[in-house]
Amino acid sequence: MNAGDELLDLLALRYSVGPKYLAPPAPSAAQWTRAAALASRAPDHGGLRPFRFVVVDDSQRDALAELFARGAQQRGQSTEEVKRARERAFNGPGLVALIARVRADLADVPPHEQWLCVGAALMNFMNALHLMGFGAKALSGASVSDPAVHQAFCGPGERLANWVIVGCPTRATHPRGLSIPAVEPDDLLLPWAG
Amino acid sequence: MNAGDELLDLLALRYSVGPKYLAPPAPSAAQWTRAAALASRAPDHGGLRPFRFVVVDDSQRDALAELFARGAQQRGQSTEEVKRARERAFNGPGLVALIARVRADLADVPPHEQWLCVGAALMNFMNALHLMGFGAKALSGASVSDPAVHQAFCGPGERLANWVIVGCPTRATHPRGLSIPAVEPDDLLLPWAG
Repeated sequence: MNAGDELLDLLALRYSVGPKYLAPPAPSAAQWTRAAALASRAPDHGGLRPFRFVVVDDSQRDALAELFARGAQQRGQSTEEVKRARERAFNGPGLVALIARVRADLADVPPHEQWLCVGAALMNFMNALHLMGFGAKALSGASVSDPAVHQAFCGPGERLANWVIVGCPTRATHPRGLSIPAVEPDDLLLPWAG
Repeated sequence: MNAGDELLDLLALRYSVGPKYLAPPAPSAAQWTRAAALASRAPDHGGLRPFRFVVVDDSQRDALAELFARGAQQRGQSTEEVKRARERAFNGPGLVALIARVRADLADVPPHEQWLCVGAALMNFMNALHLMGFGAKALSGASVSDPAVHQAFCGPGERLANWVIVGCPTRATHPRGLSIPAVEPDDLLLPWAG
């Protein structure tokens, strides 16, 4: 088996790891940088680089929890739900926000092509973390579109695409047993009907 | 250096390879399948799998060229441009259409999250081809939104996201020297300002 084959097998073993199964440590600064560097190798029509990563430090979790809790309150959620919203700020030993900046004013690179680039970057970011031995999961939910969170993370024309939580997996990663594909598997790759 | 480190370095060497520098052979059926399988490992909120791949066979290039040429004519392009449109159908020893099916009716998984999944799938598809020794490039242009091409490739609710051309690179892959990032490189990874 050559190096490429081994890598393919190793990449295919990447599964999302939820917050319950992520233990410290978080990636080091050098490891975040390496993951972001691989992300920046995504195909990028027009060279727009329509994404960036923002790392939330441990010392900032309380401030983030406050934002999450206030958002949940403003959405009229119950005390229990507000508590859970607050707790989400502490998910993952490592926490990063993926920020997308998708422009609508480019004839040659329509928004969906820019989203493809952001998604490709996310994939390589997670691939890099996986290859460094980390588990990770992309998470969204109400917080990514909360106005106060938006203001705290995004500049003009930007939006918070999703969070990525990262840490050391405390059990072997495995496919989500309950995931049922919405479409026939054999639809994934077909010859052109012509 | 452990296996993960080697793999990271190898993945970081993936660059898009244009049609001029792609020689036969195209991927075999087993290789297309392996690439599609890695694509299907993309993070996929809701398990929607909002993408599929359609392989264009060599025997179908003439028919595709006809579609491309008619589209260019209908867009009022010059004879020279119609000729070039026709030629594009023969680009790449291997040719695949990435089809996106992004639903607008899901409260939990907004369209941009589905596009992230399609982009992540594209990244892993190209990573897999790279690791198998192929060069590849994602291409879009006028053909992806041509009505006749759309009808020939897409079902209800689908659109052609981009083409992927694939083959054996005839020179060492390298970064596009002319690519100038639209944003400061040091904006890629920042600590949260809080």
